[in-house]
Amino acid sequence: MLVTEVREKIKRTERDNWKLRVGILGATGTVGQRFIQLLEDHPEFEVTALAASDRSEGKLYKDACAWRLNGEMPERVKSLRVALPQLPLDCDLVFSSLPADVAGVAEDDFACAGYPVISNSSAHRMKEDVPLLIPEVNHDHLALLDVQRKQARYDSGGFIVTNPNCSTIVLALALAPLHERFTVVSVIATTLQAISGAGYPGVASLDITDNVLPFIQNEEEKIEQETRKILGNLKPGRIDDAQILTSAQCHRVNVVDGHLVAVRVKFARSVQVEELREAFESFTSLPQELRLHSAPDRPIIVRDELDRPQPRLDRDAGNGMSITVGRIATDRVLDYRFVALGHNTIRGAAGAAILNAELLAARGYLSSHR
Amino acid sequence: MLVTEVREKIKRTERDNWKLRVGILGATGTVGQRFIQLLEDHPEFEVTALAASDRSEGKLYKDACAWRLNGEMPERVKSLRVALPQLPLDCDLVFSSLPADVAGVAEDDFACAGYPVISNSSAHRMKEDVPLLIPEVNHDHLALLDVQRKQARYDSGGFIVTNPNCSTIVLALALAPLHERFTVVSVIATTLQAISGAGYPGVASLDITDNVLPFIQNEEEKIEQETRKILGNLKPGRIDDAQILTSAQCHRVNVVDGHLVAVRVKFARSVQVEELREAFESFTSLPQELRLHSAPDRPIIVRDELDRPQPRLDRDAGNGMSITVGRIATDRVLDYRFVALGHNTIRGAAGAAILNAELLAARGYLSSHR
Amino acid sequence: MLVTEVREKIKRTERDNWKLRVGILGATGTVGQRFIQLLEDHPEFEVTALAASDRSEGKLYKDACAWRLNGEMPERVKSLRVALPQLPLDCDLVFSSLPADVAGVAEDDFACAGYPVISNSSAHRMKEDVPLLIPEVNHDHLALLDVQRKQARYDSGGFIVTNPNCSTIVLALALAPLHERFTVVSVIATTLQAISGAGYPGVASLDITDNVLPFIQNEEEKIEQETRKILGNLKPGRIDDAQILTSAQCHRVNVVDGHLVAVRVKFARSVQVEELREAFESFTSLPQELRLHSAPDRPIIVRDELDRPQPRLDRDAGNGMSITVGRIATDRVLDYRFVALGHNTIRGAAGAAILNAELLAARGYLSSHR
Amino acid sequence: MLVTEVREKIKRTERDNWKLRVGILGATGTVGQRFIQLLEDHPEFEVTALAASDRSEGKLYKDACAWRLNGEMPERVKSLRVALPQLPLDCDLVFSSLPADVAGVAEDDFACAGYPVISNSSAHRMKEDVPLLIPEVNHDHLALLDVQRKQARYDSGGFIVTNPNCSTIVLALALAPLHERFTVVSVIATTLQAISGAGYPGVASLDITDNVLPFIQNEEEKIEQETRKILGNLKPGRIDDAQILTSAQCHRVNVVDGHLVAVRVKFARSVQVEELREAFESFTSLPQELRLHSAPDRPIIVRDELDRPQPRLDRDAGNGMSITVGRIATDRVLDYRFVALGHNTIRGAAGAAILNAELLAARGYLSSHR
Repeated sequence: MLVTEVREKIKRTERDNWKLRVGILGATGTVGQRFIQLLEDHPEFEVTALAASDRSEGKLYKDACAWRLNGEMPERVKSLRVALPQLPLDCDLVFSSLPADVAGVAEDDFACAGYPVISNSSAHRMKEDVPLLIPEVNHDHLALLDVQRKQARYDSGGFIVTNPNCSTIVLALALAPLHERFTVVSVIATTLQAISGAGYPGVASLDITDNVLPFIQNEEEKIEQETRKILGNLKPGRIDDAQILTSAQCHRVNVVDGHLVAVRVKFARSVQVEELREAFESFTSLPQELRLHSAPDRPIIVRDELDRPQPRLDRDAGNGMSITVGRIATDRVLDYRFVALGHNTIRGAAGAAILNAELLAARGYLSSHR
Repeated sequence: MLVTEVREKIKRTERDNWKLRVGILGATGTVGQRFIQLLEDHPEFEVTALAASDRSEGKLYKDACAWRLNGEMPERVKSLRVALPQLPLDCDLVFSSLPADVAGVAEDDFACAGYPVISNSSAHRMKEDVPLLIPEVNHDHLALLDVQRKQARYDSGGFIVTNPNCSTIVLALALAPLHERFTVVSVIATTLQAISGAGYPGVASLDITDNVLPFIQNEEEKIEQETRKILGNLKPGRIDDAQILTSAQCHRVNVVDGHLVAVRVKFARSVQVEELREAFESFTSLPQELRLHSAPDRPIIVRDELDRPQPRLDRDAGNGMSITVGRIATDRVLDYRFVALGHNTIRGAAGAAILNAELLAARGYLSSHR
Repeated sequence: MLVTEVREKIKRTERDNWKLRVGILGATGTVGQRFIQLLEDHPEFEVTALAASDRSEGKLYKDACAWRLNGEMPERVKSLRVALPQLPLDCDLVFSSLPADVAGVAEDDFACAGYPVISNSSAHRMKEDVPLLIPEVNHDHLALLDVQRKQARYDSGGFIVTNPNCSTIVLALALAPLHERFTVVSVIATTLQAISGAGYPGVASLDITDNVLPFIQNEEEKIEQETRKILGNLKPGRIDDAQILTSAQCHRVNVVDGHLVAVRVKFARSVQVEELREAFESFTSLPQELRLHSAPDRPIIVRDELDRPQPRLDRDAGNGMSITVGRIATDRVLDYRFVALGHNTIRGAAGAAILNAELLAARGYLSSHR
Repeated sequence: MLVTEVREKIKRTERDNWKLRVGILGATGTVGQRFIQLLEDHPEFEVTALAASDRSEGKLYKDACAWRLNGEMPERVKSLRVALPQLPLDCDLVFSSLPADVAGVAEDDFACAGYPVISNSSAHRMKEDVPLLIPEVNHDHLALLDVQRKQARYDSGGFIVTNPNCSTIVLALALAPLHERFTVVSVIATTLQAISGAGYPGVASLDITDNVLPFIQNEEEKIEQETRKILGNLKPGRIDDAQILTSAQCHRVNVVDGHLVAVRVKFARSVQVEELREAFESFTSLPQELRLHSAPDRPIIVRDELDRPQPRLDRDAGNGMSITVGRIATDRVLDYRFVALGHNTIRGAAGAAILNAELLAARGYLSSHR
């Protein structure tokens, strides 16, 4: 085993010299900071370029960014100078967490110029030829990249891949094994979402202390639409939306990180509660087979305690990449109900995009331009 | 107008001498404290007896009770001595907020001894001959008191009337005008409930700070069952449960007061959104006609802002006796959805019981034993 | 007694017709909203003009203002149209809660044009001829208005009166009776301040949830300087600062309303703890004698429970105009220590300014321009 | 470097077989859980025995303990059976986080029976011959163990070593380099303490949501007394308390973990602010020299941002074993002020005791009884 370890180490060093160089669009925001934190010491990617709005342009990252995560800002990004999210950037691919209104044009520009764009923004999620990707759920949707290529929308090597909205990911990941086995007919999701989902400064403390906000701009629509696309079927050149009736009501609660979703679900056929539980527990998929760096051993963790999942106790499960499901029970209106929870800025945002990039790398969609 | 005012004043003074004397069972708890606060200066009731567990027995109320409400403990109760919740108590009726395990026997004892028992406890709510009363919704259920009388279960003058669980009241009050006009077929309720609902010390701060608890003991069952009884039809000697499919998922959130319920509802017939809105807004009932002291002018307030209702801003509407409804919209799975909010220790507990007592007084069920 | 009441009522009606007309500069902010709430049924003032930044200009107040206080926006201001904080405004005096950078010029302009300016802003607080007024503490400082007049800085009838910073008021009000009797030599104040003190949107929820901020811009300096001026002695034409060494450390904590100040104090002479307690408890002053509308019966409430004062339980004492003192004890470094608490947007801001105006009215400094 | 790594690994494996076996008294509480979490992969200690109150006796730990920390309960303790905190336990030493009333007798019993007792409890802290140890501050106080031995209070090998109160540690660690260089004459500490310091269930959420509690039982006394002992001088057979005037005011705030202390300090001589800063920054001590496993590289981290330290952002610095100091400034009453922050259940409790044990092991006070 010790020899293996030595070999492992050598391999690692070699690989380090060939890490893909990553640019981050929206680098100073809460999701941008998570990108940087999660990419510190990543085996395949290293951050070489940072871009943000004109407020930050030209500053060193350590001066431009009010770091809001636990722990220190990683040393290597401190002295990177922040550019505008414009061409060119010194990198092999870009992660984007730009606001939707800016992301539309900027991401297109980068893709046109031949950059792979792995985006957490909502701007292109619902475009017909853009994969809305959760690697455990719909990795086959990557075939849409061929459509992007054929349409010559983007220059050689350039494309856009998106990950879903932070609540949708939790819901869709929980539904995936159920839909595959039992066919979901309708789903009702009621969310209790963390404040970090709104970015920084985001939610005013006067709005959320001793309070709940029953409204998050566009969130209900996103959950209802994105879920249908993610669980949809790949047809030649497009995705057929899943024929699932979807209903979402969204609430902001006074929690730092961790979106909780109360779910009711109706299936096409009769299902036993043990089947349901087993479907969650046994679920693994391509990222686990490929042993992707950010892929959790168990995408879905089932907890049987009466009072779990809880945001503070469960959001970091699987380094923030597992979702936790609990309170599985029969429902009097639909068939079953349960509660699902995931870390909204890791599995729901930066970690999601990084896992997407790892899958793209493993599938040969990314290459170094050095 | 000035003369009227003088007359008014005289009438008030006379009435004061004939106020009904009230005992409170469970006087030191959070709901007990609300009873005392809401009954300070009540035109019909005055608190003359306090009972609590043996920890408090024999102490002056000011020494036995850690007052947790805003404002001072009312002067007149400070020097009342706390008794055990046992016969006899020096009062004409009792309000009870005893824990369910104690309430069963204690409330029966008082009713047997001829005391009207107006209870916030869950012990007798689902008993066939006990009204589960919301005066605006099912005042006709008071006819069950005749059943109690005929069965001679209780001595002359004694009876038990209950109010629903704190979340159920918000839901049932919101559903009442809809069920009356459109017939509710199924309802899905997801709650975000305040910590005061668990009493004191209740929820540990370590459990709820930066967190959500997706479990409240027995709460989902109570909401599902009680709603059907409240909206049920009075038949000779009993209530026929409403034929409504009910589903509840309950969560505790970090809010001091105010239960929020996210609701989806399906009707027996097609309904326009304007009809729905109008049904909420125009709803008034017997307590408003009788101008009962605690009855709010508008039992249901509709707010059209995108981000209302909110617990901190809306819980005190109508002195805590109105519920607020907002975010009315069509739903893709059931027919409509909306969010309802009410003050859980006022409309959902102490205020509910007091309104019940006011209705009982107006209907001649209460009398002075001086 | 009834006759008196009738007379009282008649007097009240007459006076209503002669209420002073009030303009509010900074009407849409959190303090501006408090002004409007507290002036809703005020016997001497009625709001006739509202001014705010150009974002709100020209809008109806109900459209310009996101109302963040409990309860409804008062009816009569809903349809007032918001102006810029510029001359002229249709009113007899102005209350100002403008940001300090804007307040400097705007308040001067209004005073120059003959308007009494009662300001909650910090812009003019430390000016030599501007009273920094707490009516219970230094009403004699109003003599500075003669200086303003003599210097002909402002047109006939125009002047500026300020109230202290929200934390300073709590501290200075607590120190006032001690300084008068025992002469304070040095004071060390450590504050735990509510989020409403930072206005809206103010403190980001991500900054304060599960957190404390050990920094509030300029706050420590304000407390240290203003306290010395407030407790200073009136000399011909100026105030001699009190010779008190002052030290302040300020923290923002996750509380909606209510600033808490942990105080150590050293006196010029030896003091018994009973004397200290008595000095707090017996303290009343001119506003109480004059029965000013907003003056609390007891400016300082002493609580002997081990765990009081607490923001949520004590901030509303005296309708938010009393401060509460507790935990009085000898100190090993200075002489004594105690904890003081006050409502920061009532006694510490809007209520403070209104009490100032009431004193000015009672002293004949205000007159109607109808 | 690779060869070294291999050797390192071999050494590690050998040592593992000789890990000291640890028992934990009070294993189900919040500090007990931290002990277990921090000892999970500890190079010198392994948990072999768990003890708690009779509520847990005889149960498997996984059934007895409601795990309240992030992450899973370590596998190896799940199936340990919980004993009473009574002799004998199968271990070489015990960590104790028993409540003070139980700890007095129980810890004495274990020491008498020859067990080293490393205690986080307050029961024996102020005993003349018991070291109140912070390894970076007063490791020489371990000489008191000779006194314990000579007095034959405990059987061969048995002794008691304590760590300070959770707030005291933060304060004393911050003061240590200052006292050493400049001689502290007086210190005024005002604390803002996290809810986890009160254990579980501990602080009721109704007491701390939207609130501050200005009282923590016995806390002010502990800080004032313990600080003097810790910074005291070792004399033959005893500690001479440091001649420092100490004043503490303690508050509970709505923060999960992390005690913040606002400090004013007066020195025996004039000190420049740069000296002060340098004293903090350059401070290291014996645990750093010995490279003890839990010793942070920098016991004190100085942050220059205006708004640091903050509990949520800084509590985990140095794996929770560093304290963070900021806001250093001159003070108008004493000489300087600053704010210090530390993780109360790691550096302030379980981590403190473990570091004590590591020092004891390095100094030969612990031995295996296999």
